[in-house]
Amino acid sequence: MNFPQGIYLDNNATTALAKEAKALMEPFLGEQYGNPNSLHRFGTETHTALSNAIDEIYKGINASDRDDVIITSCATESNNWVLKGIYFDLLRFGEKNHIITTEVEHPAIRATCEFLEELGVEVTYLSPNQEGILCVEQVAEAITPKTGLISIMWANNETGLINPIEEIGKLARQKGILFHTDAVQAIGKIPVDVQKAQVDLLSFSAHKFHGPKGVGGLYIRDGIPLTPLFHGGEHMHGRRSGTLNVAGIVGMGEAMRLAVQYLEYENTELRALRDRLEDALLQIPDVLIIGDRRIRVPNTILCSIRGIEGEAMLWDLNKAGIAASTGSACASETLEANPVMVAIGADKELAHTAVRISLSRYNTKEEIEYTIEVFKHSIARLRQISSTYSS
Amino acid sequence: MNFPQGIYLDNNATTALAKEAKALMEPFLGEQYGNPNSLHRFGTETHTALSNAIDEIYKGINASDRDDVIITSCATESNNWVLKGIYFDLLRFGEKNHIITTEVEHPAIRATCEFLEELGVEVTYLSPNQEGILCVEQVAEAITPKTGLISIMWANNETGLINPIEEIGKLARQKGILFHTDAVQAIGKIPVDVQKAQVDLLSFSAHKFHGPKGVGGLYIRDGIPLTPLFHGGEHMHGRRSGTLNVAGIVGMGEAMRLAVQYLEYENTELRALRDRLEDALLQIPDVLIIGDRRIRVPNTILCSIRGIEGEAMLWDLNKAGIAASTGSACASETLEANPVMVAIGADKELAHTAVRISLSRYNTKEEIEYTIEVFKHSIARLRQISSTYSS
Ligand SMILES: Cc1ncc(COP(=O)(O)O)c(C=O)c1O
Ligand SMILES: Cc1ncc(COP(=O)(O)O)c(C=O)c1O
Repeated sequence: MNFPQGIYLDNNATTALAKEAKALMEPFLGEQYGNPNSLHRFGTETHTALSNAIDEIYKGINASDRDDVIITSCATESNNWVLKGIYFDLLRFGEKNHIITTEVEHPAIRATCEFLEELGVEVTYLSPNQEGILCVEQVAEAITPKTGLISIMWANNETGLINPIEEIGKLARQKGILFHTDAVQAIGKIPVDVQKAQVDLLSFSAHKFHGPKGVGGLYIRDGIPLTPLFHGGEHMHGRRSGTLNVAGIVGMGEAMRLAVQYLEYENTELRALRDRLEDALLQIPDVLIIGDRRIRVPNTILCSIRGIEGEAMLWDLNKAGIAASTGSACASETLEANPVMVAIGADKELAHTAVRISLSRYNTKEEIEYTIEVFKHSIARLRQISSTYSS
Repeated sequence: MNFPQGIYLDNNATTALAKEAKALMEPFLGEQYGNPNSLHRFGTETHTALSNAIDEIYKGINASDRDDVIITSCATESNNWVLKGIYFDLLRFGEKNHIITTEVEHPAIRATCEFLEELGVEVTYLSPNQEGILCVEQVAEAITPKTGLISIMWANNETGLINPIEEIGKLARQKGILFHTDAVQAIGKIPVDVQKAQVDLLSFSAHKFHGPKGVGGLYIRDGIPLTPLFHGGEHMHGRRSGTLNVAGIVGMGEAMRLAVQYLEYENTELRALRDRLEDALLQIPDVLIIGDRRIRVPNTILCSIRGIEGEAMLWDLNKAGIAASTGSACASETLEANPVMVAIGADKELAHTAVRISLSRYNTKEEIEYTIEVFKHSIARLRQISSTYSS
């Protein structure tokens, strides 16, 4: 084929580091290796790039100067921090010991909630409605006088479906309940504005929007206390200790700047590419796409191809140089049925046929046309040898 | 001067990334950006480099195949994880609710212990003896039937003084008490062997031994349970969730390989350079060096220069292109008296005159000779204008 580097359609698992971000990181992997906390020149020469990066991150999510945006090592850290921090601040005292979340959160939320349940916290796991999203009425019904936190992801990593975060934010604010959203799959795909959405806490991970791996962040609205996950020195206003990963932060800042710059592109051209691929898949018999594309982030398709195990499909795609996924990267190794599809009511067989395709701004029209051809041929071939499929 | 890039003598705060490590990281900041958990080629092509890196880390500390060495984002994470993990596993139930640690630990340990005290854990903070180190008898005396954990750093970040970790490890093993050591300042400076030292848990941070910032690790002896700090997916045997920082891990592996390779150099040539500088400083009147050099890591000098505030000295050094510190980088911004000097009984005035010089294998003889000249001139000049100094 004509794509020597392969065709990467697994951008919800991780993304290519943007060349512009890499270029800005370079000096901090080279001669400018100082610790920003040091008083000497090697320390201070990192300050401009660091503060520029942090400015881009504030701007990217429309945080106010009074809010804190704390650099973490990834969204898994941010998510654990939120839940465990609020456990120590609030939930453990028992008066407000209830969390509302969803069945389709990332494991970093789900597993942490299960851990807090062992400590006596009550957790309500809401199921998405038939559209595959949460609706604000469900959340409202789940609220009790004991509810201390609502944690609902902005966009789902597997389906790309977008929850009504502004409505839930408004509800939480009215009820005086802390509201956290895992925005990992929203940043760089749709506008994320912490003021408009009225969120109190928001998690993100740089490597999901063409930044480096090993760096992420947590937005914390002004005035919200949060017991640290990393106790220690005075870094990050005393909120998160540890030597700053200067190159990582600088890379994340530039990735955020680019993410905002390309939002319009994502919503138009990238969306068109995705829709082209989706339309072509829908012309193949017995291919099902999960969720209305109008309420999905513009890059994601989760499809079910009747009669073909997701892994078999992935294997064929991989041989043709195309990288996709059966669900979140975390789950790939375990070969389980796609949990989101199970949660939205798909039967087990269908859930085992899931293939997730997630594009990025680096994909081209040629790549998509080639991908369509590969899908057509592979599906025909695999169905011929399938024991479960008869057209 | 002849050193256009300056002279970096603050290697206990952070180090230059080794060029060899940078080179190995390069592909993973470029085209090999896959998520190691993905099943496709972009994921699997990271596996060889990752497993090589992890092998180097096991070898570097002599971990056995049955032990776990879990990658974290830094030693601050590792330290918080140990203390909070054991809190959830053991300490919170009250029967074993006592920790023995020292007054001179890094804030990542100290602040976390203070947090656990708020939760009802009892903590004994041992003071170093006149030599500036802990002795095993002190530890033995502090043990009670309730002691669940001993956490004592291998080498101190400010003095470079080395604690008798093997003796303490033997004691802890005899008594059946978990033993953790923060080895951040030992790795790459002296041999670190987890078997010989009989430690159960050991923290390290790559950027302290010429690896990248934003990656570290925790050694966990075979069979030791530890409640995760990052709950989530199945990464790292279920012990620590979060997308792997491939470039960071690969860089840390190479840095560890080099650290071991240069141990002999550190103990001979680098030590000789350090001793040459130390001897020259000792010839200046009223200069005091903290701790016997025979029980210090080979790269560190903590000195007190009577009559001169540490910050004033740093400022003069910085103008001459030399980077040093008044203590740990974490404390640099706060301009406090050096806490280790206070702990070992120095009066406050003396503690305010502390200057820490920490070398690396990248320092040259010429740099050290130049540094000696700068110290001589600066000390003479600053004492002339000092209000507190009269010779
Ligand atoms: C929705 C969501 N949240 C959190 C994460 C965790 O991100 P990281 O692995 O960078 O911590 C992911 C990544 O898979 C995700 O998709
Ligand atoms: C002894 C010791 N422990 C822990 C740390 C923390 O390392 P990091 O900032 O990389 O988490 C340091 C670094 O200053 C240290 O010197």
